Amino acid sequence: MIVITGASSGLGASLTRYYGAKGQQITICGRNKERLQRVVQSSGDNVLAEVVRLDDATEVESFFESLNHAPKTIIHCAGSGLFGPLPNQSEDDLKQLINNNVLSAMLVLQQAVKRYADHDIQVVVVMSTAAQVAKAGEASYCAVKWAVKGLLESLRLELKGKPMKLIGVYPGGMATEFWQTSGADLDTSSFMSADEAAEMIATAIQQTKHGYVSDITVNRL
Amino acid sequence: MIVITGASSGLGASLTRYYGAKGQQITICGRNKERLQRVVQSSGDNVLAEVVRLDDATEVESFFESLNHAPKTIIHCAGSGLFGPLPNQSEDDLKQLINNNVLSAMLVLQQAVKRYADHDIQVVVVMSTAAQVAKAGEASYCAVKWAVKGLLESLRLELKGKPMKLIGVYPGGMATEFWQTSGADLDTSSFMSADEAAEMIATAIQQTKHGYVSDITVNRL
Amino acid sequence: MIVITGASSGLGASLTRYYGAKGQQITICGRNKERLQRVVQSSGDNVLAEVVRLDDATEVESFFESLNHAPKTIIHCAGSGLFGPLPNQSEDDLKQLINNNVLSAMLVLQQAVKRYADHDIQVVVVMSTAAQVAKAGEASYCAVKWAVKGLLESLRLELKGKPMKLIGVYPGGMATEFWQTSGADLDTSSFMSADEAAEMIATAIQQTKHGYVSDITVNRL
Amino acid sequence: MIVITGASSGLGASLTRYYGAKGQQITICGRNKERLQRVVQSSGDNVLAEVVRLDDATEVESFFESLNHAPKTIIHCAGSGLFGPLPNQSEDDLKQLINNNVLSAMLVLQQAVKRYADHDIQVVVVMSTAAQVAKAGEASYCAVKWAVKGLLESLRLELKGKPMKLIGVYPGGMATEFWQTSGADLDTSSFMSADEAAEMIATAIQQTKHGYVSDITVNRL
Repeated sequence: MIVITGASSGLGASLTRYYGAKGQQITICGRNKERLQRVVQSSGDNVLAEVVRLDDATEVESFFESLNHAPKTIIHCAGSGLFGPLPNQSEDDLKQLINNNVLSAMLVLQQAVKRYADHDIQVVVVMSTAAQVAKAGEASYCAVKWAVKGLLESLRLELKGKPMKLIGVYPGGMATEFWQTSGADLDTSSFMSADEAAEMIATAIQQTKHGYVSDITVNRL
Repeated sequence: MIVITGASSGLGASLTRYYGAKGQQITICGRNKERLQRVVQSSGDNVLAEVVRLDDATEVESFFESLNHAPKTIIHCAGSGLFGPLPNQSEDDLKQLINNNVLSAMLVLQQAVKRYADHDIQVVVVMSTAAQVAKAGEASYCAVKWAVKGLLESLRLELKGKPMKLIGVYPGGMATEFWQTSGADLDTSSFMSADEAAEMIATAIQQTKHGYVSDITVNRL
Repeated sequence: MIVITGASSGLGASLTRYYGAKGQQITICGRNKERLQRVVQSSGDNVLAEVVRLDDATEVESFFESLNHAPKTIIHCAGSGLFGPLPNQSEDDLKQLINNNVLSAMLVLQQAVKRYADHDIQVVVVMSTAAQVAKAGEASYCAVKWAVKGLLESLRLELKGKPMKLIGVYPGGMATEFWQTSGADLDTSSFMSADEAAEMIATAIQQTKHGYVSDITVNRL
Repeated sequence: MIVITGASSGLGASLTRYYGAKGQQITICGRNKERLQRVVQSSGDNVLAEVVRLDDATEVESFFESLNHAPKTIIHCAGSGLFGPLPNQSEDDLKQLINNNVLSAMLVLQQAVKRYADHDIQVVVVMSTAAQVAKAGEASYCAVKWAVKGLLESLRLELKGKPMKLIGVYPGGMATEFWQTSGADLDTSSFMSADEAAEMIATAIQQTKHGYVSDITVNRL
């Protein structure tokens, strides 16, 4: 079974449709019931959806509790954007950005490690190329994405020798509604679609007898 | 005038005493009135203190508003620690960690950039060596410190060509009460004291006609 | 057509066999004629081999000159290892390490950029996880691999907007004869084989209409 | 006693004059006898000079052998620049760049570690901000500087617990003849002088009872 967070839109929705079309058993979560339902309806017969606020520890715990067996893969796609100069960003915007990206990653990874560190499981954490470099005009967004990368890299050291593996995924330049709602004013017509990114990422995530792909960056051409 | 945040203990308090002993005009802030008063009393005659919650945008704005002229240096020392395995950390602990480190840095830098980007001012951001590498047993702490570094490095790109300069300071292995209250169980007797770190950092922060020290890492021997 | 350097053994040989089995047109190069011939014989009917010293600018130029048309992919696998404490390493060992890794990458990328920057071509540079972090006991090896990463990342900035794309590949913990000849004393029985790494990497390197996988790290489980 | 490499010009010469004016005992080395002599003559009464090719293991060993006692500080300033697009750079230029930066750092650090790892000694390695980020138009220069940083960071891990400490120094935007001879076409009139950088660096390099400044970046305003 595959668990996908942040599946109501963007890359999470695309990955759900991708794996759904392959007949995989999937449990998705997100904040918006209607949008989740639309994703469920377009992703084959094996997708369950739960409405979960990932910045609430109790809800995250309940969600993991509700899984009837250990997933073989967890894909943490949830996150949100915020762009433009820091002085223009409101306290509420900054708090939401932090909750959606930093706190949610901490709470999801906390449950994953607590429950499945000794399982043969891949935990895929989707970040952004903004986690890898500094970017002018994206200071607060880079901040929260660097945070998730720091969390991931440190947890890797803690999980050394455990069967659980963490996979870092860094997409750059994707055209999703994310951009329309995040304050960035960009022509995204030449950006890659979330479906394109999803297919590349799902194909790239592999495991052989002794090895696995631990980190993937996808960029627009 | 020098502004120092997080000055009620640790490195912030040491820096206040250091600059105070040199007769500098200083305005400090922190959360604990009694501790701030003790720092004021041990730092000469030119230190003013304000109680400020740095994770509250209104309080941060009021604090900057209260400064009667532009400081020549702002030293953002505020922050807190949290150590040990992520699965053991409570939601409240994680939220406090995030507020004390990520949100406060965003709010302080927001005010600093908004008000003083065109001033000849040095904004010193004190982080930790945990902002530079991943560390087992410090996943959530590394996360919030990586966030501040991502914020700093991105703001630098935005400030290119402006007189305001951002200085990154990365102390490692300091012995402050910080460790006693943060859940780490360590013998810190061979660690450097906050006073030692403060003296090294204050000495290293320099500006010449055409140049300045932009980043400093201090470590214990 | 695919060009693969360092194809006489290890990952380069495995990638040649992988693409050869798929019927791809391949031109490989390496230093050892007999070993190259063995790779050619095990890789189907469409593989040509040339003996080339990649640390010699004239030979590298001749090799590129000899290609009768622009390749769609160049995979630069050539490199060598050297492990153990720096004080034990001879000047000759260090020079060979530098030539095989730094100089060869500069000369190969120089020709690739000079000739094909305006072509729709993927240039894959195979490094190592030693290019991403510092490692005790691998100081000189990390040095040369960090060099290749610095070269790659800077060239990417120069190629911005050009159709040529650079792909960074970082394998860690592969079991190849490389280890046996490099001075490291390790039990590699649980390491992934070069064939496993080759299959994961070849599968992960993808391009869609608007995007591509720009960086891949593979690790042993 | 302080040892300074690459002292015949630029930052090395400035540091020699700085420490010489303070009456320090200094041994310098460089490739050009006349220029070294000029530095000796302008640096007080306690400076000795030796002509040494740092990319020759035998000469480096002889130089260290000639020191009549363990230095308390070694400052490795030697290095050279090369700028502009990679396709325009000749094989000889690339080899010289590699020898002057990568091989020399390996050979100097090799002798330093071999002889003094158990001494209370600071080994300062002067690199460049080009060791910290990728830069368009400086691909080969970034490559060799990233190499030195990888070497330094790995050696640090090997030296953990030893009294020898490695200090990383990263200057950016210095105006030295280095630029005039390196192919970059820049107006350097607003750059900081080598003397300014030397004074900031020498002041910033400090050691207290339990701590030391391990890394310093200096930039032009």
